[in-house]
Amino acid sequence: MSEQKTLIFGHKNPDTDTIASALVYAELKTRTGENAEAVRLGDVAQETQFALDHFGVEAPRRIDSASEETGSVILVDHNEFQQSVDDIENVTIREVIDHHRIANFQTEGPLLYRAEPVGCTATILLKLYKEQGEKPSKEMAGLMISAIISDTLLFKSPTCTKEDVQAAEELAVTAEVDLNEYGLEMLKAGADMSSKSTEE
Amino acid sequence: MSEQKTLIFGHKNPDTDTIASALVYAELKTRTGENAEAVRLGDVAQETQFALDHFGVEAPRRIDSASEETGSVILVDHNEFQQSVDDIENVTIREVIDHHRIANFQTEGPLLYRAEPVGCTATILLKLYKEQGEKPSKEMAGLMISAIISDTLLFKSPTCTKEDVQAAEELAVTAEVDLNEYGLEMLKAGADMSSKSTEE
Ligand SMILES: [Mn+2]
Ligand SMILES: [Mn+2]
Ligand SMILES: [Mn+2]
Ligand SMILES: [Mn+2]
Repeated sequence: MSEQKTLIFGHKNPDTDTIASALVYAELKTRTGENAEAVRLGDVAQETQFALDHFGVEAPRRIDSASEETGSVILVDHNEFQQSVDDIENVTIREVIDHHRIANFQTEGPLLYRAEPVGCTATILLKLYKEQGEKPSKEMAGLMISAIISDTLLFKSPTCTKEDVQAAEELAVTAEVDLNEYGLEMLKAGADMSSKSTEE
Repeated sequence: MSEQKTLIFGHKNPDTDTIASALVYAELKTRTGENAEAVRLGDVAQETQFALDHFGVEAPRRIDSASEETGSVILVDHNEFQQSVDDIENVTIREVIDHHRIANFQTEGPLLYRAEPVGCTATILLKLYKEQGEKPSKEMAGLMISAIISDTLLFKSPTCTKEDVQAAEELAVTAEVDLNEYGLEMLKAGADMSSKSTEE
């Protein structure tokens, strides 16, 4: 509809779900003809970098202000304003795709808000692909798996649901990875590096 | 899952969308095996009573407290706490289905939140039926049409979207009504009575 670019981003101090969900939702939006770009609000963690490298995807560009570039944003993997971009109150939140409680969030107008009580935003994004008759690319399927494994600690966290497991198993076919083998490698990559600063 | 009953209700000072959406979503929830009951937070308006009579549906029971009966509620057609049941902060909001801006709303835990920028909650509910492989009954289709006509003033309000029109046209087949003829009758029934108090 509009020619204005929409920025899609997750929370500050980004984790793998936040980075993956921004990239994945930007793919879906772009495919359905919208002018959307994934961005990030902080440094890429080592675990996330491992996932990006494994599937050959570049990290999104970092921003510190949204309103300098656009009036239109989509939040993924968060909704609380203090976790969002500093100037969140100066832009229009068109959509939120999230799996957290709602707090410190409000809008001036109606919006699309899709939250479900599942373990990971990527699990909800797979539903959105299906509802729109689309299928994630191999690269995006790989990032979605990485997000689910990260948020659920390889399906072991109490927040993990049957839907998260089913989504990961389905995506593993598209991404051509062994969930357990890849998952342990990715979590290990995050753990190995966690004692070093990201500047090293 | 749980045996605890879930109460489904719209806002105080209920309009046709609020009453219809509570009844309709309770039908869908009951069909999918949940223990759910539609209730209302205020008097039934004349327009709404006309719609209920026309499709042979009883008004939901009125409540003034939710926590006396259950710990589990679903909000339709609203989210702001001041428009909701007085003791909203003493119960768990499991779901919200709505088409308004989000404000004065928060939860302690994750939930299902489904808001879309369309003209009427009933339009979103039709999507939920489809996503769950269900079809509204003739009676519920009639109430959904009534809600869409009421919220969009027979498709003339600026909030009316293409999705609202398509939903109403599709539901008209199930409900066996002529949209224009029935819509004018219903709006007239509301207007005729609006000068009288509901106690008369
Ligand atoms: Mn996160
Ligand atoms: Mn997450
Ligand atoms: Mn209403
Ligand atoms: Mn409404």
